[in-house]
Amino acid sequence: MLERARILDEGDPLKEYRERFLVPEGVIYLDGNSLGCLPRATPARLEQVVREEWGSDLIRSWNSAGWIDLPARVGAKIAPLIGAQPHEVIACDSTSVNLFKLISAALAMRPGRKVVLSEPGNFPTDLYMIEGLAKQGLAERRLAPRETIADALGADVALLMLTHTHYKTGELFDMAALTRAAHAAGALVLWDLSHSGGALPVDLNTCEVDFAVGCGYKYFNGGPGAPAYAFVAERHQEAAQQPLTGWMGHAAPFAFSDDYAPAAGIDRMLCGTPPILGLAALEVGVDLIAEIGVERLYAKSQALSEFFRQCLSESGILALSPSGERVGRGENEPTQHDSPSPQPPPLKGRGSALDLASPTDPSRRGSQLSFRHPDAYAICQALIARDVIGDFRDPDILRFGFAPAYLRFEDMVEAARHLAEVLASGEWQKTEFSERAMVT
Amino acid sequence: MLERARILDEGDPLKEYRERFLVPEGVIYLDGNSLGCLPRATPARLEQVVREEWGSDLIRSWNSAGWIDLPARVGAKIAPLIGAQPHEVIACDSTSVNLFKLISAALAMRPGRKVVLSEPGNFPTDLYMIEGLAKQGLAERRLAPRETIADALGADVALLMLTHTHYKTGELFDMAALTRAAHAAGALVLWDLSHSGGALPVDLNTCEVDFAVGCGYKYFNGGPGAPAYAFVAERHQEAAQQPLTGWMGHAAPFAFSDDYAPAAGIDRMLCGTPPILGLAALEVGVDLIAEIGVERLYAKSQALSEFFRQCLSESGILALSPSGERVGRGENEPTQHDSPSPQPPPLKGRGSALDLASPTDPSRRGSQLSFRHPDAYAICQALIARDVIGDFRDPDILRFGFAPAYLRFEDMVEAARHLAEVLASGEWQKTEFSERAMVT
Repeated sequence: MLERARILDEGDPLKEYRERFLVPEGVIYLDGNSLGCLPRATPARLEQVVREEWGSDLIRSWNSAGWIDLPARVGAKIAPLIGAQPHEVIACDSTSVNLFKLISAALAMRPGRKVVLSEPGNFPTDLYMIEGLAKQGLAERRLAPRETIADALGADVALLMLTHTHYKTGELFDMAALTRAAHAAGALVLWDLSHSGGALPVDLNTCEVDFAVGCGYKYFNGGPGAPAYAFVAERHQEAAQQPLTGWMGHAAPFAFSDDYAPAAGIDRMLCGTPPILGLAALEVGVDLIAEIGVERLYAKSQALSEFFRQCLSESGILALSPSGERVGRGENEPTQHDSPSPQPPPLKGRGSALDLASPTDPSRRGSQLSFRHPDAYAICQALIARDVIGDFRDPDILRFGFAPAYLRFEDMVEAARHLAEVLASGEWQKTEFSERAMVT
Repeated sequence: MLERARILDEGDPLKEYRERFLVPEGVIYLDGNSLGCLPRATPARLEQVVREEWGSDLIRSWNSAGWIDLPARVGAKIAPLIGAQPHEVIACDSTSVNLFKLISAALAMRPGRKVVLSEPGNFPTDLYMIEGLAKQGLAERRLAPRETIADALGADVALLMLTHTHYKTGELFDMAALTRAAHAAGALVLWDLSHSGGALPVDLNTCEVDFAVGCGYKYFNGGPGAPAYAFVAERHQEAAQQPLTGWMGHAAPFAFSDDYAPAAGIDRMLCGTPPILGLAALEVGVDLIAEIGVERLYAKSQALSEFFRQCLSESGILALSPSGERVGRGENEPTQHDSPSPQPPPLKGRGSALDLASPTDPSRRGSQLSFRHPDAYAICQALIARDVIGDFRDPDILRFGFAPAYLRFEDMVEAARHLAEVLASGEWQKTEFSERAMVT
């Protein structure tokens, strides 16, 4: 496989872009869907923002360096990557806060309806933000498994709110079909693009989506806790009002009026003073992803993940082969291992086989592959100890993201080899269980 | 005055701290109450966060670099500076978003009462956040002039929400007395410390305050749009629940449960993923202010502002002298000027005299002095053109902040001289009116 990987890397049209990121030597980073790598241009840009714009020009930079326009400017750059018009997207706050704004706006636009419909197992913060509004008496949360969502779109549903690419499995929703179904039921739609934006083509306007949010620190490489973004379709911008009516969303913030009047357009989704350091770093990441192009990125990520799956299949550790047959070792079957350490205790779970938790069809998933294993946490830790960084999601998901701007096919071979070695050796059973904090 | 200033600077116990900030050569910066200066330690710390923690250690830094603890860690460092216990403060989101959280929490704790009482002319975002909740049907906004606030504390008031140091005039509220009055009326109290925190001693717990918020980018020198902070008194932490129930406020965020359960203590005030770049920069600023100490800072800022007022008085441009008599030039009285430019048009307003808009007693104001003049905007622009940076607040306020960690008495003499020259020359009348964006 290594030979084939090198040929694929040689012919990779994106190969030059790896150099545009700081990828630590010796690390195979399969967690760009949690925290994207550092673009090499970011430190210099931040240095400029800090030393020149803040340090030397101080308060004047709100005008002279265009700080005041950063949320709209970065939003406008994200817009074409998610199928939106530049004036329909703004970069601000966190994904969670933006969810609250847009759920609230949607509820106010559907008086008499209180249900916000989502699926169980959606990313927690999405579900929790509905609960926050429910506790205020403003919303009612309804969760329906994804197969039954269309049927659950009753006349009481104000908003259908789903995550386009599932954070655990990578499974994609059919955005066009579900948006149509929601509209047919008189509901509005909000898509969380956190695991889609910057990773795969999204066509918000073609799908006639009403609202969307997304994350800046994953595939947009904006840095830890980067600002998020919010999309409001042009046709709703006059009607959509959100309750976090901070001064930056005012029509004339510097008039310092006692009374709130929402800004025209997407600006009314702003709340407090924009976080300039975070926005400046995010802009660098977005510029780089825009330069590469999401179509090319998605094509390569599909190729990478399929190649990784083949590597695992050939190692015999994938319980479910692409054709559907189980090829892994059986339950409780101890394995030989070549670890120099003492014989590990018997495997806890079903043995060294992994179950694919993602769709086998790459067009039905985002830039990731997930696997189930009862010892997923410990396996993940053992991989990290080998500098192969994926992540764990409770209770049993081992998740690998394929950020194609900086990953090589060779990395897939190496990652698969490490994973096979870890599983064969049982070395993960010696891993200490410690903190589990890994921000998705 | 210059001679006296130099003696004062020589004896200034804080004089060494100016070197700990990057104060641009030739600039007299009287706007640290809008955006604090850059601490010299900040660029290196950010470089470390970006290159090492993000770039090299990537996702692992949530644990290994303590990113996940940053909101609590920075909050705990702010706490003693505002009279709180370490576990009562958390750094997160913007002041506006934190206002929304705490107003909501307070309303939920006072069922049957809907009024949030504040004063007209409070900082706009504070008033707007009440409006946001009012529009949701959850609050009723009542504004009473500050002299009548205690009388307006009826049985329908859930929350008294005031800004401790007024952003325009610098006037201080009596925190202890008003908190007592609110409690006597059965209401809770929320203090906005944006113009107090890091500038003057605040005793939240001595005053038995319930809630507070504050800003990170002013006297804490956290950088443009730095994260804000929120305080919840220990006795309320069990009962206080806020509607922005994001995953970071969950009792077990990494269990990825569908159902929200608030974290114990102040952590439940968190919402989305913490903004690490902003928090790291804020921490440097807070550390520096903590090292200097707010008592010493406030003592010096009072001395600076009093000295500045004397300089202005001696220049004859202060309409109201410390003793209350008008010493400025009269209405419409043209002045001589030594500007090389052509004779300016007659003065628009009352002439070159400034009215003090701040309390004359320094113990009744924060670290600022404000003046009224009909041409305040243009005067401010003319000063900025001379690298004397104060700011303008609609409609007629010229505002000077005295961030004492990096200002010298000599700067007061120079700033007063420039102001006198600008007023005498009328040069501001040639200033182009352009953008007014200056973030408070």
